[in-house]
Amino acid sequence: MNRIEELRSLVPAEIIVTDPDMMEGYRSDKADLVAAGKPLAVLRPRCTAHVATIMKWATKTGTVVVPRGAGTGLSGGATALDGGVIVTMERMNSIRRLDPTNHTVEVEAGLVNAEVSRAVADSGLFYPPDPGSFEVSTIGGNLATNAGGMRCVKYGVTRNSVLGLEIVLADGRILRTGGQTIKNVAGLDLTHLFVGSEGTLGIITAATLRLRPTPVATATFAATFPTLESGGRALDSIFACGVTPSVLELMDNVTINAVEDYQRMDLDREAALLLIGQADGTDALAQVERMVSCCDDAGAALSVATADPAESELLLQARRLAGWATTEQYPTIIEDVGVPRSRLPELLSTIAAISEDTGVRIATVGHAGDGNLHPMLLLPDLDDDTRQRAMQTADHVCAAALALDGTITGEHGIGELKRHWLPYQLDNTALQVQASIKHALDPANLLNPGRGF
Amino acid sequence: MNRIEELRSLVPAEIIVTDPDMMEGYRSDKADLVAAGKPLAVLRPRCTAHVATIMKWATKTGTVVVPRGAGTGLSGGATALDGGVIVTMERMNSIRRLDPTNHTVEVEAGLVNAEVSRAVADSGLFYPPDPGSFEVSTIGGNLATNAGGMRCVKYGVTRNSVLGLEIVLADGRILRTGGQTIKNVAGLDLTHLFVGSEGTLGIITAATLRLRPTPVATATFAATFPTLESGGRALDSIFACGVTPSVLELMDNVTINAVEDYQRMDLDREAALLLIGQADGTDALAQVERMVSCCDDAGAALSVATADPAESELLLQARRLAGWATTEQYPTIIEDVGVPRSRLPELLSTIAAISEDTGVRIATVGHAGDGNLHPMLLLPDLDDDTRQRAMQTADHVCAAALALDGTITGEHGIGELKRHWLPYQLDNTALQVQASIKHALDPANLLNPGRGF
Ligand SMILES: Cc1cc2nc3c(=O)[nH]c(=O)nc-3n(C[C@H](O)[C@H](O)[C@H](O)COP(=O)(O)OP(=O)(O)OC[C@H]3O[C@@H](n4cnc5c(N)ncnc54)[C@H](O)[C@@H]3O)c2cc1C
Ligand SMILES: Cc1cc2nc3c(=O)[nH]c(=O)nc-3n(C[C@H](O)[C@H](O)[C@H](O)COP(=O)(O)OP(=O)(O)OC[C@H]3O[C@@H](n4cnc5c(N)ncnc54)[C@H](O)[C@@H]3O)c2cc1C
Repeated sequence: MNRIEELRSLVPAEIIVTDPDMMEGYRSDKADLVAAGKPLAVLRPRCTAHVATIMKWATKTGTVVVPRGAGTGLSGGATALDGGVIVTMERMNSIRRLDPTNHTVEVEAGLVNAEVSRAVADSGLFYPPDPGSFEVSTIGGNLATNAGGMRCVKYGVTRNSVLGLEIVLADGRILRTGGQTIKNVAGLDLTHLFVGSEGTLGIITAATLRLRPTPVATATFAATFPTLESGGRALDSIFACGVTPSVLELMDNVTINAVEDYQRMDLDREAALLLIGQADGTDALAQVERMVSCCDDAGAALSVATADPAESELLLQARRLAGWATTEQYPTIIEDVGVPRSRLPELLSTIAAISEDTGVRIATVGHAGDGNLHPMLLLPDLDDDTRQRAMQTADHVCAAALALDGTITGEHGIGELKRHWLPYQLDNTALQVQASIKHALDPANLLNPGRGF
Repeated sequence: MNRIEELRSLVPAEIIVTDPDMMEGYRSDKADLVAAGKPLAVLRPRCTAHVATIMKWATKTGTVVVPRGAGTGLSGGATALDGGVIVTMERMNSIRRLDPTNHTVEVEAGLVNAEVSRAVADSGLFYPPDPGSFEVSTIGGNLATNAGGMRCVKYGVTRNSVLGLEIVLADGRILRTGGQTIKNVAGLDLTHLFVGSEGTLGIITAATLRLRPTPVATATFAATFPTLESGGRALDSIFACGVTPSVLELMDNVTINAVEDYQRMDLDREAALLLIGQADGTDALAQVERMVSCCDDAGAALSVATADPAESELLLQARRLAGWATTEQYPTIIEDVGVPRSRLPELLSTIAAISEDTGVRIATVGHAGDGNLHPMLLLPDLDDDTRQRAMQTADHVCAAALALDGTITGEHGIGELKRHWLPYQLDNTALQVQASIKHALDPANLLNPGRGF
C-alpha cells in the first residue's frame, strides 16, 4: 500500500487532492524568487482531528509536511517541497467562541484575517493586526509569520493579540498553550514560541485572539517632504512629542510616482518622501494636528489633516495602492527589512544608492513608525538573469539593514528565501539553539524542513 | 581540588562567597511557604564573562545553579537548593546604552527596575512595567518572571517591553536574541521563550528594553461599591465604553479594612469593593470622567475624579499601601491568580467563601483591568499547622481560578511553590513539550531544577 493509499484509509477521501491541476494553485506562495516543488498531495482537513491523523501518518511514513494558510507569504515558507504534502488550513475557518465582554474570540486557523474583524464589529470590537493581505491571508498564516501591518505602531504585531493556541505537533499530539486570560505565566510560554515559527514546530489549528474596542474617532494626516532628512526629522519629533500614532506610514519618490502612474491621486511627484499617519480616540484630531506641526517644523512642503472619515480613507488609499500599483505594473519582489526608527533616512538613501548601482528600480514603502521598510524591486521580467540581479540587490538591502543595527526581516519571515542571509544576523550559538528546539519538537524534521531559520 | 577551589582558579576570589552568615540573606525569596536549601556558595559576577565561566564550571562539575535577582519573588524560584550555588546578578547593574530617539535602553540584568525609569526620565521617557516591588526587584528577575504591575493594563507586561536579550546558557555559551528594532521575525523568537522562564533555561545578563514617552497628563478616580456585582458591572462597562485605562486596580473589603487599620485614609470600611483607576494622555481627565460615569451608573456608593497630581498620588496610595499594610501586620502569603475579567466578581465571592470555610483570613487586591487577583492570606503565625492550612487555602483559590477558565499564576510565576498545581492547568502534552525544550537547552538539568514548570 503506498503512503497516500494508507492515508485514504485514515481520513475522508475528499480531504486528499492528488490531481496535478487542482494541486497547481497550492504549489507556491507570493515569493516569486522561490522555486516551487512537486507535492505528493494537497490535504484539506476540516477539523483538528484530521490534522492530528495526518501528522501521525506523516510521522509513521516519514512524509514531509508544508503547512499552508492562504499562500500570500512573501518569503516562500508555504511553497511546496518535492515529495511532501501540503496541509492547507482553508477549510478550518469557523469562529469557535466570541466573548465580547472580555474582548476575546477563539477562531480556527484557516479563518481569513478580515473575517475576524467583520464578525466582531457588531460588538464594537476589532482585531488590530492588519497585514496588507488582510482580506486574503489567514489567522494561522499571520500567527506563523507574526504578521504586522499599519495599525501595529499602536496596537502591536500579531504576537501582541494572541492569548492561546491549539497546535498539532509533528507526531500528531495536540498541544494547548496559554488560555483565555490577559496575563498568564504558568510554565514556559509556548504560545510565544510558536508565534513566528513559520510552520516548523507544529500546525496551528486554532487561536484565542485578543480584540480591542473600536476607536470612537480617527483622524488622518499626510505630509510631503523635499528631502529624506526633513522627513526623518519629522518622524523623530513626532515620537518625541508624546502623541500615539495609530498609523504612521511612508512612501518614497519612486513609490509616489508608481502610484501616480497607476491611478491619478494628485500626489507630488517631486517629493522625496510622503508620510501618512493617523491617531484614534477622543482626541484623535488634536493628536494629528500635533503631528502635522512636527512635520511643518521639520520642513514639510505640504501637509493636510482631517477628521472626516471619507477624506481619511482617501489619504490612506495612496498607501494601500502602493503594493498593487507596483505588482500590477511590474514583476515585483517585496523586500522587508527593519532598523531602529531614527535610521530610516540612512537606510532609504542607501537603498537609493543600491538601486543606482545594480540598475534595479526600487520603490520603498514602509511602516515608518516601527522602522520597518518594504523596498519593492520593480523588475522588467523574471528571466534567470533578472532573478539573479534581484537576489543580489536584495542581498545588498539586507546587508544595509544589518549595518544599521537592523534586521533582515521585520514581518515577512525567513521562509526559504531569506535563509542564506540569516547567518549574517544570527551567530552560531543562536542558530544552534534554534536547531536544538526544532529537534526537540520535530526530531525527524518533517515540518517545513529548510524553512524559517 | 574541590569544586569551589576549582572555581577560585577561574574567577576573581571576591566573587565567591562561602561564609554562612553572608550567604544567609541569599537563601530565600519572599515565598515564606518554600523552605530554603543550604547553598555551597553565593556567586556575585561583575560581567557576562564571569557568568559564562561560572556556567562552564557548573556544567563541568555538575553543579546546580539558582539564578537570583533581588529575591523579591513570591513563588520560591530564587530560593537556595541544597549543594547548589546561587548566582546573584545584583552587581551587574550598569546601563550599557541609552537611545532616547528610538526609545530603547540596554541594561544589565541586575539593574533595579526603578533605576531604569530614573535614568531615562530626563529624556522624557519611562519604562512601563511596574511590579509593586519596582524599587527593589531587578530587570533580570522581572524578565525571568514576566512581571506585571499596575500600568500593564495599558502598556502590557514585561514581555511587551523587551526587544532583545543577552543570555548565558547552561554550558556557558553566550546567546544573543532579538535586537534593537521594534519588529523582528528573523528565526524562532528566542527572546520570548526566555521571558518568563524563571531561571530554568539560562541566565539573563542584559536586555534591550523598550521605553515610552512620559504621558503629558494623568488623571485618577476612585469609586466604592456596596456589592461585588455592582463593581463587576462597572468594570464591564468601563471596558465596553472605549476608554483606555492606564491603571485599573481593585481592593476588597478585607483589604480596605487592613489598610485603614494600618494607616487612616478615610476609606469606606463598609464597601464591598474599591476601584482605583487612571488614564493618561491629553484627554486623561475626560477619560477618567467617563469611567466615573460607568461606576455611578453601575451603582457606586461614592466616586471621585481628579487631574491634580498630589490628589492622584493620594488615591493610588491606598492601593500601594495594601501590600505593606498586610505584610507588616501579619505573616502574609500573597497569592496570584487570573481569570477572564468579567469573572472577577465570581472569583471574589468564591474567595470569600473559601476564607469562611478554611478560617484563613483573605484580603484581596488586584489588577482588575487584567483580571489578575492577589488574594493575600493573613496568617496568625507560621507554625506547621498554619502553613498547611495556608497551602490548602491556596489550593482552593487556584482551583477556583481554573474553574473560571483562569490561571494559577498571572504574574508571579510557578517557582517551586506552585509546581504541584501546574498539572491541573496544563495537560501532559504541554508538560512534556516544556520538558523537551528544557532538555534541549539544559540537558544536565543544572539551571534551577524543580522550578518553573
Ligand atoms: C499584497 C500583500 C500584502 C502583504 N502585506 C503584509 C503586511 O503588511 N504585513 C505582513 O506581515 N505581511 C504581509 N504580507 C505577507 C503575508 O500576507 C503574511 O506573511 C501572512 O501572514 C501570510 O498568511 P497566509 O495565510 O497567506 O500564510 P501562507 O503564505 O500560506 O504561509 C506563511 C507561512 O506560515 C506557515 N503557516 C501558514 N498557516 C499555518 C498554520 N496554520 N500553522 C502553522 N504554520 C502555518 C506556512 O508554512 C508558511 O511558512 C503581504 C502579502 C501580500 C501578497
Ligand atoms: C512587595 C512585593 C510586591 C510585588 N509586586 C509584584 C507585582 O506587582 N507584579 C509582579 O509581577 N510581581 C510582583 N512581586 C513579585 C516579584 O517582585 C517579581 O516576581 C519580580 O519580578 C522578581 O524580581 P527579582 O529581581 O526579585 O527576582 P528574584 O526573586 O531574585 O527571582 C525570581 C525568579 O527569576 C529568576 N531570575 C532572577 N534573575 C534572573 C536572571 N538574571 N536570569 C535568569 N533568571 C533570573 C530566579 O531564578 C527566580 O526564578 C512583588 C513582590 C513583593 C515582595
